[in-house]
Amino acid sequence: MDVLVINCGSSSLKYQLINTNTEEVLASGLCDRIGIANGQFSYKPKGGDKITRNVDMQDHEVAIKLVLEALIDSKDGIIKSLNEIKATGHRIVHGGEHFTHSALVNDEVIQHIEECSDLAPLHNPAHLLGIRACKHLMPNTPMVAVFDTAFHQSMPPHAYIYGLPYEYYEKYKIRRYGFHGTSHSYVSKRTAEFLGIPLENSRIITCHLGNGSSICAVKNGQSIDTSMGLTPLEGLVMGTRSGDLDPAIIDYIAQKENLSTKEVLNILNKKSGVLGISGLSSDFRDLLAADEEGNLKARFAREVFAYRVAKYIGAYTAALVGVDAIAFCAGVGENAKFIRGKIVSHLHFLGINLDESANLETVGKEGIISTPDSKVKVCVIPTNEELMIARDTREIILKTQEH
Amino acid sequence: MDVLVINCGSSSLKYQLINTNTEEVLASGLCDRIGIANGQFSYKPKGGDKITRNVDMQDHEVAIKLVLEALIDSKDGIIKSLNEIKATGHRIVHGGEHFTHSALVNDEVIQHIEECSDLAPLHNPAHLLGIRACKHLMPNTPMVAVFDTAFHQSMPPHAYIYGLPYEYYEKYKIRRYGFHGTSHSYVSKRTAEFLGIPLENSRIITCHLGNGSSICAVKNGQSIDTSMGLTPLEGLVMGTRSGDLDPAIIDYIAQKENLSTKEVLNILNKKSGVLGISGLSSDFRDLLAADEEGNLKARFAREVFAYRVAKYIGAYTAALVGVDAIAFCAGVGENAKFIRGKIVSHLHFLGINLDESANLETVGKEGIISTPDSKVKVCVIPTNEELMIARDTREIILKTQEH
Repeated sequence: MDVLVINCGSSSLKYQLINTNTEEVLASGLCDRIGIANGQFSYKPKGGDKITRNVDMQDHEVAIKLVLEALIDSKDGIIKSLNEIKATGHRIVHGGEHFTHSALVNDEVIQHIEECSDLAPLHNPAHLLGIRACKHLMPNTPMVAVFDTAFHQSMPPHAYIYGLPYEYYEKYKIRRYGFHGTSHSYVSKRTAEFLGIPLENSRIITCHLGNGSSICAVKNGQSIDTSMGLTPLEGLVMGTRSGDLDPAIIDYIAQKENLSTKEVLNILNKKSGVLGISGLSSDFRDLLAADEEGNLKARFAREVFAYRVAKYIGAYTAALVGVDAIAFCAGVGENAKFIRGKIVSHLHFLGINLDESANLETVGKEGIISTPDSKVKVCVIPTNEELMIARDTREIILKTQEH
Repeated sequence: MDVLVINCGSSSLKYQLINTNTEEVLASGLCDRIGIANGQFSYKPKGGDKITRNVDMQDHEVAIKLVLEALIDSKDGIIKSLNEIKATGHRIVHGGEHFTHSALVNDEVIQHIEECSDLAPLHNPAHLLGIRACKHLMPNTPMVAVFDTAFHQSMPPHAYIYGLPYEYYEKYKIRRYGFHGTSHSYVSKRTAEFLGIPLENSRIITCHLGNGSSICAVKNGQSIDTSMGLTPLEGLVMGTRSGDLDPAIIDYIAQKENLSTKEVLNILNKKSGVLGISGLSSDFRDLLAADEEGNLKARFAREVFAYRVAKYIGAYTAALVGVDAIAFCAGVGENAKFIRGKIVSHLHFLGINLDESANLETVGKEGIISTPDSKVKVCVIPTNEELMIARDTREIILKTQEH
């Protein structure tokens, strides 16, 4: 079954066409600067070269139309007809408390996604633009919504409630939601499988470390706590996001720099994290290169990042009352050996020892990086959110067809 | 040596006269509503009844004058002459990066405390009012400033730097400072002594749990991390303070409730924490009573509180790469058996087991509450910040006299 996976931002759209039988990516690409001048469209068919075109796209429908035309193009296309696309899978950042699983899109689901827009004002409206464009262009192709928050809806109240007046939860649903759920769900399942641990009786900590980073405590296959909160700003120090802060700092910066609260929040989201600390880059590969050339700020940013991850692993070990396995995934988790080493060096008390050579060798692939005698296994499990969205989409479409 | 310990707030002043040879409290009391109508003055001499008077105090100097008059009063006084007060010890909330230890007050020290006012605008100016009033009323009595932040100045940069643009640290000194340092310092030392562990080779986590709460990771006698931050708002859920939050929540509440950022911060400081969650009280004794009567919100608030403490203990065990002892202190830590039990139930993975009967018996006194076979000792160590201030004051005065 070919599934078109769509991840819509407010002015961009990432897509992959995935054959869910073989799990091959048939084509992928990006529509950038939608609704802005100097738009860019890229398309890469399986086995072919990446094609990039400058083309203005006035809205998301125009962008998706370009994608569909490219997919069936007589020269570079990868399918013969749009009928081969059996479903579209849409990444939705915020599903609030309503969505505990992925959902077949219908009017009611669209309405609920709209209601959650308030909690993700930059994301959910953009996702809806993508859903509406697909509905218009492919009215007979079913759509599935896959939520970043859904996996974390199993968190118990003592983990998701903030120390705020309770009425803010009742009136405005202010609580911890957590994100990267699709990734944490996949990686925790795959970790259990890979290590031969029974998922239904396991305590796994998944560390999704990328440009955005979060950690999740997974007990018996269910998320019981996670580091991101109402929004993806909370938790770890990230590429450009601050993560945890004394809440009083926002007003302190606003006063000192003569900025509005919104301007400060923008800085916390876009100019902080390891970019802010290093003054250099949000990309951990740049920081590694700079560190190797003796840039102390780059090294320091990586140390701060690793230290915070280690503290969260400790905290979630307490949340889980022990841990059986720790998994690293996403760009930094799958590749940054030095950072993984730093993190693991804090975990000797759990009976964990790093297998230095396994850590050096395990880059971008599955593997165990703890020594065989470690009481807790530490592993690398590459994640693939697009593939997870395609799998969920397939599963829901098949279930629907059964009825 | 009799030392008068003074803790000045903006409209209140707590005091104790302590004989530092015997460590007896000779007298104690409170001046409330200074500079506001309907002032109240209280005074309790050792072995005598508490005396309370309604008296308006136009400023801190008037208040201190009342204290001094009460101390030498011919009927209820406890000393014959003010000459018997050999020094005053002043609690100072914020010593910034300048003060790593307590300091004999001179013009330079006053200037540095003034410079830190920016970081604690509600506290440091009030402390200075107290210092100036004492200087005026007792010009020949030396004064010592004891800082809440000083003990934590040993934190390494990777623990005190936030994930913010580094220039905010350089320009405005925005970083983690931590508070309750006097208490964490005393309790960590006393824990090592009490358990017979060498302080210079120890990993101790001190949990100061009161109306304000903080946790500290102490390595070889030095603070290496602590839960409060730039201000005392960060960290644990407290009596009325929120503790850790997604920073994006401030603006979210501001918009929903049509409040300014300052008004939201006021709510986070004064109407949140277990008071906010329970809707009932910031006092853990009230919550216990309500819980026992079946109030589920009261129970829930206590569970959220305990869960957050457990997570911080896990995080700091990772920071310390293991832990030798965990100590509870302050009102909740010394008395709340249920909460201690909840916290310890998360720590089995450290080889800790709660000694149920020891936990029930150890209320407001020193004691070990883990079973004898526990790998990590858990104990209760009552703290006494006023006594610590008096001890520090004595020590500095004696050192000064040596030279």
